[in-house]
Amino acid sequence: MINKVKPKTLPGFMELLPNEQILFNKMKQTIQGVYEKYGFLPLDTPIIEDAQVLLAKAGGETEKQIYRFEKGENDLALRFDLTVPLAKYVTEYYDKLSFPFKRYQIGKVYRGEKPQRGRYREFYQCDIDIIGDGKLSVINEAELPAVIYDTFKNLGFDDFTICINNRKILNGLFESLSLEDKSQEILRIIDKIDKIGASEVKKEIAEIATEGKNKTDNSNSDKNKTDNGESDKNTKGESKADVIMKFISIDGDNQTKIKALEELNISNEKFEEGLEELKQLIQFVKMFGVPEEYYKIDLTIARGLDYYTGTVYETFLNKYRNLGSICSGGRYDNLAEYYTDRQMPGVGISIGLSRLFFQLMDNNIISADNQKIADVLVVSMTDDYAMCADVARKLREENINVAINMEDQKIGKKFKYADNLNVKFVIIIGEDEINNNVVTVKDMLAGEQQTLSLESAIKLIKND
Amino acid sequence: MINKVKPKTLPGFMELLPNEQILFNKMKQTIQGVYEKYGFLPLDTPIIEDAQVLLAKAGGETEKQIYRFEKGENDLALRFDLTVPLAKYVTEYYDKLSFPFKRYQIGKVYRGEKPQRGRYREFYQCDIDIIGDGKLSVINEAELPAVIYDTFKNLGFDDFTICINNRKILNGLFESLSLEDKSQEILRIIDKIDKIGASEVKKEIAEIATEGKNKTDNSNSDKNKTDNGESDKNTKGESKADVIMKFISIDGDNQTKIKALEELNISNEKFEEGLEELKQLIQFVKMFGVPEEYYKIDLTIARGLDYYTGTVYETFLNKYRNLGSICSGGRYDNLAEYYTDRQMPGVGISIGLSRLFFQLMDNNIISADNQKIADVLVVSMTDDYAMCADVARKLREENINVAINMEDQKIGKKFKYADNLNVKFVIIIGEDEINNNVVTVKDMLAGEQQTLSLESAIKLIKND
Repeated sequence: MINKVKPKTLPGFMELLPNEQILFNKMKQTIQGVYEKYGFLPLDTPIIEDAQVLLAKAGGETEKQIYRFEKGENDLALRFDLTVPLAKYVTEYYDKLSFPFKRYQIGKVYRGEKPQRGRYREFYQCDIDIIGDGKLSVINEAELPAVIYDTFKNLGFDDFTICINNRKILNGLFESLSLEDKSQEILRIIDKIDKIGASEVKKEIAEIATEGKNKTDNSNSDKNKTDNGESDKNTKGESKADVIMKFISIDGDNQTKIKALEELNISNEKFEEGLEELKQLIQFVKMFGVPEEYYKIDLTIARGLDYYTGTVYETFLNKYRNLGSICSGGRYDNLAEYYTDRQMPGVGISIGLSRLFFQLMDNNIISADNQKIADVLVVSMTDDYAMCADVARKLREENINVAINMEDQKIGKKFKYADNLNVKFVIIIGEDEINNNVVTVKDMLAGEQQTLSLESAIKLIKND
Repeated sequence: MINKVKPKTLPGFMELLPNEQILFNKMKQTIQGVYEKYGFLPLDTPIIEDAQVLLAKAGGETEKQIYRFEKGENDLALRFDLTVPLAKYVTEYYDKLSFPFKRYQIGKVYRGEKPQRGRYREFYQCDIDIIGDGKLSVINEAELPAVIYDTFKNLGFDDFTICINNRKILNGLFESLSLEDKSQEILRIIDKIDKIGASEVKKEIAEIATEGKNKTDNSNSDKNKTDNGESDKNTKGESKADVIMKFISIDGDNQTKIKALEELNISNEKFEEGLEELKQLIQFVKMFGVPEEYYKIDLTIARGLDYYTGTVYETFLNKYRNLGSICSGGRYDNLAEYYTDRQMPGVGISIGLSRLFFQLMDNNIISADNQKIADVLVVSMTDDYAMCADVARKLREENINVAINMEDQKIGKKFKYADNLNVKFVIIIGEDEINNNVVTVKDMLAGEQQTLSLESAIKLIKND
């Protein structure tokens, strides 16, 4: 007698039932298909990497969440995203790649977070990135919303919005006000606007801005030299708060927003650059085929405060805004600075598929109920299996997916089996069928069955 | 200045260049397609499992090779095959599954072996298994060679052999000679036949058999009670060696081999059962559509001495027999005995895709030279990108995979880029094209280029 171990899957690790897995795989396949339609090349880097390589940049939360361990003399870690392995890859194989290097990678990544509903420790990311060698045209940033649009359209969604912003605009704005050191604090105050109201927000910003001014002038006097002429006009925190309030109240369609940004008359190189990029982007996104109702400028999205340096994207299901962004990304200036002196700017997006799948299932937005692999189940009613095997073969030659059940089971159990597989047709082969060289086909949806030649049965099934 | 870390991939971890990855993915996709045509359901279990669960059965080499580590209070391990996770899965979700449960899983597994050429620490296995609840018809064993045949045919191979044996035949033979305790030793001697010759083999077996008899009679007298009458006839090791030599010299086509096995007149239940199963199998494999030249009885294959209990399969490329078996598997009586009292017999096969891919590349049997994702590259010769974006969109709407290159690069560099992507066509859009609303298409193979309407260009590309 063997001592039994209780079989259990670890908490925080997604494991699906077959019908769910079929649906999950279809979504993964759809995403991959769109990524390939845009010419992205596949990559599949190892899940285990040298910890020194993987953690070259990491710190803080990432380092705590990482799965890191030793094997022999090796210090190993499991990848926690697909971006660091990409940075490693483009540096390691630089001589063998063509730039701009466009790759997609769909694979599992690992983060040992506290498991919560819908947060996984092992989860799929579906990433695309375009990496330049030294420089990278802004046109690439306009193509990604088209990829996002095609992807979610092909996944069956109709009502979603791709939100676009440019980090340089916000950074330039703060810089022009000599408030770049206070940006995080100010953004946190802005976030409270629904709770505390606009006038309280303005008051708090004005306080911060006044402090900010003094501090900045002392510590950063050299860096801010060129701005001093400008910022002298706004010596008071109050007038800085005015500009910020004006900025965050910008609303309307894309053209109106751009016009309002121009009318702010911010004289700062970064701000102007960001605005120019945003204008170009909005124009090209349309040419790549994204209908205007599917994308908009959203000056409030900021994503990963230090990583992204220009354009940023977030994507929301309009009816399920509470799910958060379902596809995000942006432009970064330097992918691989921890590995190489080469400047490698890039732009990319990522879909967290495991989490998205959980959320969509959990909110009944998608259903795995009728998912199937086999179109037909062939069942034998005798132990003369020859005809069954032959029928299965002929159906498969017609590119029909066929499961067989030739177990010693009652017919009722076999129909139950067919139900569970969600097959549309069951082909029954008993003594009569063998003797008359015909098959009995049951349409599981209609509940009807008929006996006919295999040739006619194949026609029936293929026409369905 | 940031301190640089040297980017390196760990030894023993496969990492491919994009064109190789395209080919690898195609092979993986082909295998998956065939598995689905036979109605196998997809599974995707976690790579990390509770170490107690994963190692319930393991021991010896497996335990040494495993990646095992702690995270917080959890004792974790990376899966080293896809069979143990399947055993866990069918036990854990027993109530939600229909039996026979047919699943495929294609995923990475981990073994910390000493890295050698073509042996990986992280590698893909592509498995199918059919699991019965209590019992499982032998017909399932006949379907798997059809899956193997279809898989390798679809992968582009024409010259391979699926070798089939049944472990009960060999075990029954040894049992009938009261030599079951000596089976491994005898098999080792048989393996030397090419080196030491048949008569020396026979001599060594006879010696072993004589010892064996004495020992077996003392220690296993109870178990062998029913056989004693028979084995008394063969008191001498020599006559036992005769039977074994006769067995291993069996040759000819499948029917001849079966006839010769019958003529051995071994009176042993296990032997007879194995022979009966083999006879049925050989008959049904043909009905499932495997041409006779692609499979044969091979009494020398034995695979994993304790795991498999009946039918076993190995597959060889006839011209590259030295690669070893490229697809193996067999029947086992009890999948999940470490987790449950339920008897779950099964049959399965596995393709070690990473190793196979390496071997095929290494022997120049396959080549990744011309692999591509994009069919067309659209390049801009001006910084007016509007028409480029529009052309790319229209081609994609026609289901053509399109990459773009709108970087500020010379035309020569852009053609080089197209070469590296292995695209068949480059569409060039410069000032003239924009002004006349036409495109210039270069056929990269023919080296010819022509200027025509986008509509005609799409026709040209689609007809290619």
